[in-house]
Amino acid sequence: MNKICIIGVGLIGASFAVGLKCANQVNTIIGFGRHEDKLKKAQTLGIIDQYSLDIGSALEGVQMVLIAVPVNSFKQILSLIKPHIDDATIICDVGSTKGSVVDAAKDIFGQMPKRFVPAHPIAGKEKSGIEAADEKLFYNQRIILTPQDCTDTQAVTKVRELWESVGGKVEIMSAQKHDDLLAMTSHLPHILAFSLMDYLRDNNPDAMNYAAGGFKDFSRIASSDSLMWRDICLNNSVDIIKHINGYQQVLNKLANLIENRQSQTLENLFSEAKSMRDAWYSK
Amino acid sequence: MNKICIIGVGLIGASFAVGLKCANQVNTIIGFGRHEDKLKKAQTLGIIDQYSLDIGSALEGVQMVLIAVPVNSFKQILSLIKPHIDDATIICDVGSTKGSVVDAAKDIFGQMPKRFVPAHPIAGKEKSGIEAADEKLFYNQRIILTPQDCTDTQAVTKVRELWESVGGKVEIMSAQKHDDLLAMTSHLPHILAFSLMDYLRDNNPDAMNYAAGGFKDFSRIASSDSLMWRDICLNNSVDIIKHINGYQQVLNKLANLIENRQSQTLENLFSEAKSMRDAWYSK
Repeated sequence: MNKICIIGVGLIGASFAVGLKCANQVNTIIGFGRHEDKLKKAQTLGIIDQYSLDIGSALEGVQMVLIAVPVNSFKQILSLIKPHIDDATIICDVGSTKGSVVDAAKDIFGQMPKRFVPAHPIAGKEKSGIEAADEKLFYNQRIILTPQDCTDTQAVTKVRELWESVGGKVEIMSAQKHDDLLAMTSHLPHILAFSLMDYLRDNNPDAMNYAAGGFKDFSRIASSDSLMWRDICLNNSVDIIKHINGYQQVLNKLANLIENRQSQTLENLFSEAKSMRDAWYSK
Repeated sequence: MNKICIIGVGLIGASFAVGLKCANQVNTIIGFGRHEDKLKKAQTLGIIDQYSLDIGSALEGVQMVLIAVPVNSFKQILSLIKPHIDDATIICDVGSTKGSVVDAAKDIFGQMPKRFVPAHPIAGKEKSGIEAADEKLFYNQRIILTPQDCTDTQAVTKVRELWESVGGKVEIMSAQKHDDLLAMTSHLPHILAFSLMDYLRDNNPDAMNYAAGGFKDFSRIASSDSLMWRDICLNNSVDIIKHINGYQQVLNKLANLIENRQSQTLENLFSEAKSMRDAWYSK
């Protein structure tokens, strides 16, 4: 590609940029954002070649725009770029939820833009920001693309190629399937960890003085960014609530098994849980 | 001390033994258990000086017996040792629950033996068995002692000294307080992790193919030993059920906040959770 614009040069946007450069996939990368100091720094570090605080200038002559902003800002960004792109421009994103970005695109454009290929790279680091940018961030990580039926297949192919060039393992599925899967494997665990902290806070904050290794690992994701997780909850609310409710049934079941001293059933449940987890970990 | 008997020479029992030896706290350590090959190995490795498959021989001339068996076997072991100890023998244990061992002792002895000092070293490793024995296992780890009002203070002092000699930070509290604290910080998180695996198994086991770093840490404790956790649930059932129910109220609250799009409240909850977790981790 000749020119790509990256909107939101944070960890993900910056890592994608450096990855593409390392893979010689693009001639020029131009960054756009709200904070000039960060864009300047990104340019100094060679993450981007140019930057602009004016969206029209930022999008001039670009073949693709990657939107790497929090999902709650997505609609606003689409509004911003709409006057400056045309039907040929490929749009991609990196948001943790996909149904909401598809809905936002339909709202802003009247229908899903044919060359909008929503993406979610299931990758990250605890650190954030430009300084943490890593061309290997996506290496061997799953990149989910959620094109619609109407999405231009050539655009999908191009987006797939770019993500594969930075080492990603691309998989295509519907936005609905993506959101449901991530609700189960990522959103629900985060909710559970946040909830444990909230429970301890209300019940007995000093209890944490007696917490050890198991608590440390279980609770790590409760250190996640509150704004990002607020936005994920609001943008995938139906699936998240569905899975909280489903999970509550399992807790009810376990409480009953314990109360009724169903020793063998408990043992079987824990044993199967262990087997599943061990099998997953050893892949 | 001249002679100590360790019943159950697994990770905890063996680590205590090597720790005491390194700290020159005891002349002779004799092991007792069901598997001669393991006891032989422990002797070969220098973890214990002697072993016996006969409880009478094992307890002859000992000043203290450490019971390091699963909590569910505790009562059976107390029955076994009762004829071979006297009022002077210090009894200690390492079980993850304390109310149940106190109850077991009252059952077997008619009343709480005055020199029984229940203990719980909050320490462990993923590995188990003699080969994982580590004299530093308890170093800087909390060791909770739960003597009763009637417990002989000299026995408590002696037990405290021994645990401190292997590096432990001893704290004394009631068995009830111990069980409640551990229910919140250890038992509940394990239940939550097992429950997530059970939920995924029933709902969509393939979803785990899309799980990443957050899931990995959250779910690690679901790899815990099923028998040990079955026993913990049965031996601390009241507190565990109480905390499952309390936790479920938090999940209900969160589901409502998400459903009603209470964005600021969600953000505050997640932010406070993060602050608590970060503060705990940085201690």
